[in-house]
Amino acid sequence: MIRTDKILLKHGSGGKSMATLVHEIFMRYFDNSILSEKTDAARIDVPNQKLVFTTDAFVVDPIFFPGGDIGKLAVCGTVNDLAVTGAKPLFLSASFIIEEGFPVTDLIRVVKSMAKASAEAGVKIVAGDTKVVHKGKCDKIFISTSGIGTIGLKQIPIATGKRMKPGDHIIVTGYVGDHGTAVMAAREGFNMQIRVRSDCAPLNHMIQRLLKAGIDITFMRDATRGGVATVLNEAVEGKSLGISVNEQKVPCRSAVRGFCELLGFDPLYIANEGKAVIIVRPGDALKALHVLRKDQYGRLAADIGTITRNNPGRVILQTQTGSQRYLDMLSGDQLPRIC
Amino acid sequence: MIRTDKILLKHGSGGKSMATLVHEIFMRYFDNSILSEKTDAARIDVPNQKLVFTTDAFVVDPIFFPGGDIGKLAVCGTVNDLAVTGAKPLFLSASFIIEEGFPVTDLIRVVKSMAKASAEAGVKIVAGDTKVVHKGKCDKIFISTSGIGTIGLKQIPIATGKRMKPGDHIIVTGYVGDHGTAVMAAREGFNMQIRVRSDCAPLNHMIQRLLKAGIDITFMRDATRGGVATVLNEAVEGKSLGISVNEQKVPCRSAVRGFCELLGFDPLYIANEGKAVIIVRPGDALKALHVLRKDQYGRLAADIGTITRNNPGRVILQTQTGSQRYLDMLSGDQLPRIC
Repeated sequence: MIRTDKILLKHGSGGKSMATLVHEIFMRYFDNSILSEKTDAARIDVPNQKLVFTTDAFVVDPIFFPGGDIGKLAVCGTVNDLAVTGAKPLFLSASFIIEEGFPVTDLIRVVKSMAKASAEAGVKIVAGDTKVVHKGKCDKIFISTSGIGTIGLKQIPIATGKRMKPGDHIIVTGYVGDHGTAVMAAREGFNMQIRVRSDCAPLNHMIQRLLKAGIDITFMRDATRGGVATVLNEAVEGKSLGISVNEQKVPCRSAVRGFCELLGFDPLYIANEGKAVIIVRPGDALKALHVLRKDQYGRLAADIGTITRNNPGRVILQTQTGSQRYLDMLSGDQLPRIC
Repeated sequence: MIRTDKILLKHGSGGKSMATLVHEIFMRYFDNSILSEKTDAARIDVPNQKLVFTTDAFVVDPIFFPGGDIGKLAVCGTVNDLAVTGAKPLFLSASFIIEEGFPVTDLIRVVKSMAKASAEAGVKIVAGDTKVVHKGKCDKIFISTSGIGTIGLKQIPIATGKRMKPGDHIIVTGYVGDHGTAVMAAREGFNMQIRVRSDCAPLNHMIQRLLKAGIDITFMRDATRGGVATVLNEAVEGKSLGISVNEQKVPCRSAVRGFCELLGFDPLYIANEGKAVIIVRPGDALKALHVLRKDQYGRLAADIGTITRNNPGRVILQTQTGSQRYLDMLSGDQLPRIC
């Protein structure tokens, strides 16, 4: 239940409060079966063609950060939302809300970055809109992208995770926490000198290779706001299955680990923009890792845990010290404007 | 050429400066043939199916105004962008950027309004996203909607106006300037007591009726930012055709006329959110008016002018006093945040 009469930062943080907001307000009033699948991209039935359609708003602060910028993010975020459904991303739209006084050079830099990321992903930005608001009425630039992808008529639905079974393996495609760490460290007032770049990247080609290799994927999602822990919680939420994650197997840079320890964060909750959580049948795990590790964005893919019968609906972390603890969904406003 | 090193309000006003910005930055770097058609909605080739895909950001201030709100606007704006291409709007996405502290009750009101407008238009909102930013980093709420529509495989391209000929008639579907007047009058600091409500409405059903009646439409666009005058300029821009408009025939409420006179505006430049400019073959004009006038949103449709061989690329207004003047494209920042 929404317990406040005002929208708070936590309502946009990707965690519990946002889930409540989406459920109680947007899903309630927009009420339709496609939306209520609660996947990142909508699967649309069109005669002779399955389409996938998704949208995201990007408000990252700062807009330029090591490894990327708001433009690259806006393209990769939407491409990845399409890709993890098993779709081939094809077309994007982009709408811009720009603050009066925003430097044209910065806009060009952002737009070029979008063009470059689009070219790499193989998508076209085919529709757009621009609004400019008075100085102080938005913060530099916000970008909303929507995307359309096509999906094979016989493609099994992946994003809902309905086919997951106990024993399925959980793969994360590389280092966790790079994006969130890079953005936070670059934020005004922080000014920390750490050598971490955002992992922002389009994952669609890598994922298509995985599908073409015939890997039986039972759940797949990119781990953005709320991090890997949030995606894992979403995977088993409301199901009679649990998840066991081996902390020692989670790939994480020491710089990210150090940054998180300093600030009291857990890297598993830190946003990524080029990492997917992929759940596969036990017999396909090694093959999946093999395919992923041949890709530039999956070189450090790791098998981090399994689907369990125990702890239905919950994610259990087997810590490095040998103890166990629950990995709950992110609650509160840990990291606003990380994407 | 963009002559400033900063984005100014006029870059988002729908006029010349925005056209420059779009051409020099977005079209340049996103470079693809679909985008360069410069229509409001992208026509996408998908095997066995033509799709139309569009996007718009909505930043209207105030968010509630007589006759509508930002939510109704966000749905109708995108539905109408699809409809004027000849498409049947089917699916929308909506992404929200919300200011910390925004009242939940207001959000519910906006979302309900979106749901109502979607139901009337017969579209489904199938994807969404929410971001919340710190207080003062955006102004209450911004909404970006994208839309997908389907279009008959044999539908002739309407939006480019390439089939227009001298003698074609220009129809506007009702009173001009209602939306912009209603929003401006409701704006803080204005507080004018005039009885004008926004015309915000989904026009897709009316337009589909027109197409089903077999009307030969050679150009069609909804007259939003920049008003009817801007759309007319877009229709003949770069073509060897001109436009002659009879001011006396342009339907406009006396309250809107009075408001505009007071503030030095021309109603032909004021934004509408439920009006289309439809150009048809001379022999179809009466039939088109007949079909339009049977619809609740077209009761006051009027034939306001013709396509001419004279004045190529220009729009000439035959004024009520018998003189003539050019109706140029809107330049500058007449009305920021009107939609």
